Amino acid sequence: MIQEQRKFSIVGNSVHRVDGVDKVTGKAKYTGDLVIPEVAEGKFLRSPYAHARIRSIDTREAEAMAGVIAVLTSKDFTDISPYMGRSKNKDHPIIAVDRAIFAGQPVAAVAAVDRATAEEAFGKIHVDYEELPAVIDVDEAMAENTPRIHDFAERNICFQTELVKGDVEKGFVEADEIFEDTFEFPMIYHYSMEPHTAIAQVDSDGISVWTSTGHPFGVRQEIAEIFHYPLSKIRVHVNFVGGAYGSKSGGKIEPLVVALARKAQRPVRVVQSVSEAMATCRRHAIKCKVKTGVKKDGTLVAKQAEIYLNTGAYTETGPIVTGRTLTRILGPYRYPNLKINSYCVYTNTVSAASFRSIGGPQTAWATESQMDIIAQKLGLDPVALRLKNLVKKGEEIRPKFRPLDADLAKGFKLVVDKLGWDGPVSKDGRGRGVGFGTTDPGAPLASTSTVHVLADGSVVVLCGTVELGQGAKTVMSQIVAEELSVSLERVMIRPIDTAFTPFDRSTGSSRSTTVMGKALELAGADARQQILELAAEHFEAPEEAITLKDGEAMARGKKVSYGELIHHHFAMQGGELVGRGYAHGGMAPDPPNPLFWEIGIGAVEVDVDRETGKVHVAKYVTAADAGKALHPLQCEGQDEGSAMMGFGHTFYESYYFEAGQIINSTMVDYKVPTFDDVPDEFESILIEDGNGPGPYGSKGLGEGGIIPVAPAVANAIAWSTGARIRTLPLTPEKVWRALQNAKKEQSR
Amino acid sequence: MIQEQRKFSIVGNSVHRVDGVDKVTGKAKYTGDLVIPEVAEGKFLRSPYAHARIRSIDTREAEAMAGVIAVLTSKDFTDISPYMGRSKNKDHPIIAVDRAIFAGQPVAAVAAVDRATAEEAFGKIHVDYEELPAVIDVDEAMAENTPRIHDFAERNICFQTELVKGDVEKGFVEADEIFEDTFEFPMIYHYSMEPHTAIAQVDSDGISVWTSTGHPFGVRQEIAEIFHYPLSKIRVHVNFVGGAYGSKSGGKIEPLVVALARKAQRPVRVVQSVSEAMATCRRHAIKCKVKTGVKKDGTLVAKQAEIYLNTGAYTETGPIVTGRTLTRILGPYRYPNLKINSYCVYTNTVSAASFRSIGGPQTAWATESQMDIIAQKLGLDPVALRLKNLVKKGEEIRPKFRPLDADLAKGFKLVVDKLGWDGPVSKDGRGRGVGFGTTDPGAPLASTSTVHVLADGSVVVLCGTVELGQGAKTVMSQIVAEELSVSLERVMIRPIDTAFTPFDRSTGSSRSTTVMGKALELAGADARQQILELAAEHFEAPEEAITLKDGEAMARGKKVSYGELIHHHFAMQGGELVGRGYAHGGMAPDPPNPLFWEIGIGAVEVDVDRETGKVHVAKYVTAADAGKALHPLQCEGQDEGSAMMGFGHTFYESYYFEAGQIINSTMVDYKVPTFDDVPDEFESILIEDGNGPGPYGSKGLGEGGIIPVAPAVANAIAWSTGARIRTLPLTPEKVWRALQNAKKEQSR
Repeated sequence: MIQEQRKFSIVGNSVHRVDGVDKVTGKAKYTGDLVIPEVAEGKFLRSPYAHARIRSIDTREAEAMAGVIAVLTSKDFTDISPYMGRSKNKDHPIIAVDRAIFAGQPVAAVAAVDRATAEEAFGKIHVDYEELPAVIDVDEAMAENTPRIHDFAERNICFQTELVKGDVEKGFVEADEIFEDTFEFPMIYHYSMEPHTAIAQVDSDGISVWTSTGHPFGVRQEIAEIFHYPLSKIRVHVNFVGGAYGSKSGGKIEPLVVALARKAQRPVRVVQSVSEAMATCRRHAIKCKVKTGVKKDGTLVAKQAEIYLNTGAYTETGPIVTGRTLTRILGPYRYPNLKINSYCVYTNTVSAASFRSIGGPQTAWATESQMDIIAQKLGLDPVALRLKNLVKKGEEIRPKFRPLDADLAKGFKLVVDKLGWDGPVSKDGRGRGVGFGTTDPGAPLASTSTVHVLADGSVVVLCGTVELGQGAKTVMSQIVAEELSVSLERVMIRPIDTAFTPFDRSTGSSRSTTVMGKALELAGADARQQILELAAEHFEAPEEAITLKDGEAMARGKKVSYGELIHHHFAMQGGELVGRGYAHGGMAPDPPNPLFWEIGIGAVEVDVDRETGKVHVAKYVTAADAGKALHPLQCEGQDEGSAMMGFGHTFYESYYFEAGQIINSTMVDYKVPTFDDVPDEFESILIEDGNGPGPYGSKGLGEGGIIPVAPAVANAIAWSTGARIRTLPLTPEKVWRALQNAKKEQSR
Repeated sequence: MIQEQRKFSIVGNSVHRVDGVDKVTGKAKYTGDLVIPEVAEGKFLRSPYAHARIRSIDTREAEAMAGVIAVLTSKDFTDISPYMGRSKNKDHPIIAVDRAIFAGQPVAAVAAVDRATAEEAFGKIHVDYEELPAVIDVDEAMAENTPRIHDFAERNICFQTELVKGDVEKGFVEADEIFEDTFEFPMIYHYSMEPHTAIAQVDSDGISVWTSTGHPFGVRQEIAEIFHYPLSKIRVHVNFVGGAYGSKSGGKIEPLVVALARKAQRPVRVVQSVSEAMATCRRHAIKCKVKTGVKKDGTLVAKQAEIYLNTGAYTETGPIVTGRTLTRILGPYRYPNLKINSYCVYTNTVSAASFRSIGGPQTAWATESQMDIIAQKLGLDPVALRLKNLVKKGEEIRPKFRPLDADLAKGFKLVVDKLGWDGPVSKDGRGRGVGFGTTDPGAPLASTSTVHVLADGSVVVLCGTVELGQGAKTVMSQIVAEELSVSLERVMIRPIDTAFTPFDRSTGSSRSTTVMGKALELAGADARQQILELAAEHFEAPEEAITLKDGEAMARGKKVSYGELIHHHFAMQGGELVGRGYAHGGMAPDPPNPLFWEIGIGAVEVDVDRETGKVHVAKYVTAADAGKALHPLQCEGQDEGSAMMGFGHTFYESYYFEAGQIINSTMVDYKVPTFDDVPDEFESILIEDGNGPGPYGSKGLGEGGIIPVAPAVANAIAWSTGARIRTLPLTPEKVWRALQNAKKEQSR
């Protein structure tokens, strides 16, 4: 309520991006742009086999080569473990130890005077492989008698988890209709503009890493653990990062680059290609069997699902993603009875990792596709079917989770109204579809920051949130400027250097504006309070009588600049005020999960070319719940960008394998959407109820928009053509074949 | 009183220097060791004339030279003023504008691919000079009809100030004896191991400077003002500095290096030679006429002094040094009547700057030499004469100044007892002398700092005090370790980077342990309090029941590490606690000046070789008032180092000029003390009354030890040989000549 009355001067405005000029003029420095003195170039020699025993590696000839500085193999890990990984499994070798378990796994690393020399040295490293049988998909992996990728994982199951509510068998008995479908979602690549790039230096001061990560403090923690250093001796530098989407969450290539630099005794830089980045991490492929029981009127009564996640070679964040599918398969619907089983399965493929809305688009692909299968069968309007089953604000989605904090029906109606919904097929025959996602975002707590007011009134912010392109520097600057009542131009966010920047958990999981934003709001308010106290002393007036505006304190018709107040406080010698803010455990609600519910609603209208199977998106409406949009244009940009990314996996994206090898790992072969794919009409709706836990009632977004796209499009195709497709991507060929099958079935 | 009862575990111990290993192994990086990518080498072309009009400078031939990147002259200062300087006079051209006003002044600057090319380019810069008459000493400068060095300065007087108390004429009337002497103290060089070195880079992020300064925030301020940037856009980096002693206080070569880098459009490094450093700044030479009225019993009744400081070409800190002589000429003695006039005089010589105990050794040279002239004439023991006139604790030294905070007689007796004083000549004929300094150190307020406790319990300190060799990193680490109850090894002081490090006024003026130490004590206590609160919550116990020790909190027989407490507070996601400390105006006493009195007491025993005039120091006892010695060995090191520096100006040091040129500006020609000059017996006494304003009752030292050396030695020579010398240095030739004169006088 207080928030509602507050009049904002900076927050809520779509100000110019604070990093905009540097980015469009090319001045913004990304990791690969940095010049580190004496740096050597590193390259990883990768396994050509999806599964092979490494009998021996002979590096002598390579090491003797002119220009080669160091060659690293697992044999160099004598004083430390060669395994990393955030899970207790610790099954992620920093470099292959005695087996290669996916094609593309690093088996040796070379540091040389230049990249050509490093690549030439690859020809002089003699690896004696014994090829072993490999498993690429989850069915192969879980088959009886398949060899285990990791000794401890029976049937290659890395992790499994279950959600049970009510009695699902009883539910099915009560149902009028039961629907059983299997959906598949392929492996896809994050495709951030900047592939993984890292520079490492190991010297008597400790370990320094410059890296394109979204988790500078996570990387610090992992490096500290692997190399046995205190946190204070690991220095991670990050400034601009060219996108991440989960591909840069936690240590990726950094530990290996550090190990190589440690052996080389000089700084080493590794700049990966797109192919190498595709061999570093990707999204979980999912195979999902869904069985849903429904009353004739459309009331959902039971849902059973088996979800198999292809997690690849290492545990990585697989169990977290797997756990998250339990909520995300539910969508925004009320089910009295549930039984969801989710399995995280190892395969001989590149390890899956976090990816924008982990497990979200994959499970929504199943649930939201099936909702329209149900509607079609029951003769119901798909919008009406959803509205009937939508969980209400304050109602439970998942047992023991925080009740829903949003009015879903209101948002959904805004979206379908904007699309002009009057049925799933328009008058001119276009197909229409909707999709809905309601997810428990990661949004972990733990951000700290400091805000510094200098003696000339300029403001410096130490904030560990990474500018990944999402506009973090801008929105964080807005929050601080708002709290301190200074113009945005006065505020400068420093690059991240963990030697100085206070701790932040990570950038991602829709957390930064909400959690770091809160830390900055508190740090700014702390500094503001100090200014108020100095001003009260200066004016000999109570704090309530002081007004702060544009870097000045005013009272009794007089004004004084913040700088003057600071100078005076510090004996006219300069000085500085430091505000401190923590977003700690106390910020969590009870129950603590989720911090907020993240909403993604999409509605689409498509033309399907019956001759070619090519689908044209005429109109797309997306909606996100911003709580309070601190920078509306950036919120829309996040939501629309997320939806556009969804068009990628909807129409184009998939890893393709042949004999265990990825065969489309180049920018030519792996297709992503371009500006040509932007829908003719494209609308983003921001829901602002002011009820988020972040600053001024904000909540996270950016992960919702991607969720509903694929099922909305598939539903639109199905309603307008009768062709129901249960695997992605919806390539023209696949759509064309589905159209032919649909024709055959209809003519039967 | 509370301090007395506190039991310290780290403070008060002479722990190993935290930077010791890096220094003795050569790993510590000084500014000249840094490798900045793309750096160009800069050199300054200097005036060969002490005074000359610059008719024109033709740089075209130099600019056309291969390898020359930029040539800078005052003509390049089109958008900004070419003048710098902290005083309102702003009479310090960053580069000579239309006149050169001392030999060695930069008239052009070259940035080139290497230093040889830059030097070669000097031959192709054509400067058309018109030589003008120059003044080197204050008498010449103040003579009638001497041309003005700066238009506004009549008789070349830059600044003058006066101290009057009682009625000095009346005092002289009441006196039984009146003594009138003139003393001279030459220009001397700071001779820090590292000459001035700076690297600058100007790009779209702002201005970055890596420099060997003791005033990173002062340099930031000056660069911001000169180049019109907000403070937040100036980034000054400092880590290790090889000594300063005042030569690196405030901007020295940095503005010119920045201007050159700005023109060169790439980073530029300037590494000065010793000769160039000698042409950058030096100590004020002083000519001092002292007239003192004394009763027969030795009671001082009146003092009149005229002090002329040769301040060189620019104002710099001349007025501050001049002002400080008013107190420092007084010594520790009670005078009912005073009239002190002090004049800061421009000359055509390199500008004088701050130098360890500004104006202290020079004025003590006069006052303390004359005390023994008085004693000798009145037939009094020089120790007894001093004891008779010493100001008592709580008594006023100078009107309106804070009363004396130390028991001088107690300290003085400790020193003379340690020397074995039983008269000014020992039984075996050695001369003995004493000297005394009581000074109002600069010790300006305004330090801020943050102390960070990380989630593994390691502690990071952001502290703007520069490690100049004085041991700042060690003592600051001790304070934080003490406050947080962690081992010293856990604490890491970060290098200074003004982009991140909170404001500190400066390093110097005996301020750092007292003022920054207080800020760190408060920041550490703030972090400690946060740990206590978390522990109280953890143990469900009152804070008083918690004991903190070795990084763990204990209560009820259980313990928990700081790291665990932090993790728990931050939802098991990591986290960090930030403690904040300010030493602001509120720390000052009333009256605010000085923050504390700094004491220097010295007593010496010498052998004078009557054949050669060579003086051998058999024994030296020095004493400093530490308040509380936080690191006794470092305190002794400071005090002894200060005294050794005093032996430098006592026996060896002086700038020598010929035709306006310094003729001894090389390491061969300019002599400083070596280990051979260390007295056979050398003792340092630390007075610890626990009454300082710094942490745990500490106060600053390091500037006191240098003050009494020269007069103590001169007094010892005089008592044992009858030769009274009133100018420094006491070279063998000068002593020998004085011995000859003394013989003549005695034989008359």
